[in-house]
Amino acid sequence: MNEWELIQRLCRDLPTNDLTRVGPGDDCAVLDFGIPDRLLLFKTDAVVEGVHFLGDTEPERVGHKALARCLSDVAAMAGTATHVLVTVGLPGGEEAPWVERAYVGLTRLAREHGVAVVGGETTTTPVRLLSISLIGWAPRDRCVLRSGARVGDAIFVTGELGGTLVSGRHLDFEPRLREARWLTEQVAVHAMIDLSDGLAGDLGHLLQASGVGAELLASAIPISRAARLAAKAGGRPAMAAALGDGEDFELLFSVSARDAVPLRDAWHTRFPALRLSCVGKVTESEGIIMRDRDGRRPLEANGYVHFQKS
Amino acid sequence: MNEWELIQRLCRDLPTNDLTRVGPGDDCAVLDFGIPDRLLLFKTDAVVEGVHFLGDTEPERVGHKALARCLSDVAAMAGTATHVLVTVGLPGGEEAPWVERAYVGLTRLAREHGVAVVGGETTTTPVRLLSISLIGWAPRDRCVLRSGARVGDAIFVTGELGGTLVSGRHLDFEPRLREARWLTEQVAVHAMIDLSDGLAGDLGHLLQASGVGAELLASAIPISRAARLAAKAGGRPAMAAALGDGEDFELLFSVSARDAVPLRDAWHTRFPALRLSCVGKVTESEGIIMRDRDGRRPLEANGYVHFQKS
Repeated sequence: MNEWELIQRLCRDLPTNDLTRVGPGDDCAVLDFGIPDRLLLFKTDAVVEGVHFLGDTEPERVGHKALARCLSDVAAMAGTATHVLVTVGLPGGEEAPWVERAYVGLTRLAREHGVAVVGGETTTTPVRLLSISLIGWAPRDRCVLRSGARVGDAIFVTGELGGTLVSGRHLDFEPRLREARWLTEQVAVHAMIDLSDGLAGDLGHLLQASGVGAELLASAIPISRAARLAAKAGGRPAMAAALGDGEDFELLFSVSARDAVPLRDAWHTRFPALRLSCVGKVTESEGIIMRDRDGRRPLEANGYVHFQKS
Repeated sequence: MNEWELIQRLCRDLPTNDLTRVGPGDDCAVLDFGIPDRLLLFKTDAVVEGVHFLGDTEPERVGHKALARCLSDVAAMAGTATHVLVTVGLPGGEEAPWVERAYVGLTRLAREHGVAVVGGETTTTPVRLLSISLIGWAPRDRCVLRSGARVGDAIFVTGELGGTLVSGRHLDFEPRLREARWLTEQVAVHAMIDLSDGLAGDLGHLLQASGVGAELLASAIPISRAARLAAKAGGRPAMAAALGDGEDFELLFSVSARDAVPLRDAWHTRFPALRLSCVGKVTESEGIIMRDRDGRRPLEANGYVHFQKS
């Protein structure tokens, strides 16, 4: 049983209640406490030494990454983060300097986004870990889920994909909170997700939640310079990196085809330094099809493209 | 630097915002989202294998304990829990049966208290851990903090203290949510905390937050049968266990002296099976004084009573 299957099993028949709008399965849980114009968002995410950072990673960057990952999930709902609690797991020994430096990175990012750090706890764990619990909100009429993609929608992605592990960007990325809120003020964003598992995997999650499929245009995928350089140096092919590396923390979303061109033009005026790419369209048949000059082929969640027999 | 000093250092100069009513330092953070009659509560707490449970502890009891600890903190604010997220840390290997059994204990307790489990995540950690993030609420006019104890108040504690590790009660305890809400409906509860570190330590936290001291009556401390039996078998003296063992998860609170007797009488009618003990009074001079037949002596946070020189 892999992680995905385990989560599926744990999520069967969980207790719920009247205040719950969206439970497991989206970027954040969505709660309705009857606040007139707002829905609450609720999220948790952990970074663990040896998995999400290394023992010699600068602690400030670990603190930044821990919070930025959670903020990226709030961005995926076009929300605003307001409060976090921090759980610090530490092995024995003189860990105070490490934690204090991690807090420097974490609180710097929190301040930038108006997020209050309202407590937490320290506990003993065999390796260092930082787990963030987050509350935020989204406008009641503009909270974007994964499940709203419609056949014919244009699919967009922000930034450039792949190679974040080699470039170190996975530690320093800026969560796309402002960009996501701006998007929902311009057009009806039908569905959105942040890219943590890679374009192929996360697009798969969005499509599955929406009950649709997609066709991607290979030449439109924005491959990062880091992914290209790594490929040249003998690493993973650049397209595979862009589709499957993960930890890009860019936004992937769908809008009506008629909104696509005006949105792209307005974006380039508002965010000239950040690329926005229309990478494909939503289709009726399930799964993801990749189109390139050789034809159309199915794409797997790990970014693997089936090669044609002919 | 011990854990307490580290937390004190991390809590210096944390970012805050207008929606924050109470930040670090109480049982839960208290947030004001402008809901007319409610304040939100926000809490996180983790249990780690080897620290809070053992490798062979029944997983159902681990799941129960993980959630019950958080619910106990909500009880300490006289609140109601509504939503949790669960972070599951697992070492490699076939862990699905363990997690599924832990979820049985966790969701059973959640259902009892109307708490929705709205998601979470699984991650890789060297030992098993369960971390709970919780949202709840308290009536805007009846949210009880640690900081409201007043000189002359009567100090009460629910249940019996000490020996929870030997009896196994630390895995099976019932968080005192109903009892705490009932208390605030009867009288003005000035200050409240749940007993996780032991009576001596947690009373110290409550008094420090309130800027007052206390005098305890040794003969009034409700020592558990488990603590007495353990002492007879050569373990820690029963009084030291009641004061310092921790993990009792009972309520400690203060009310006006004039409310003490009527409250005790009403309690015995409402909760005949659960002991309520008036253990002392709030005083002006800082620190905790223990009074027994030999006189008055200072009490340390670990439950150690200074013996008289004479």
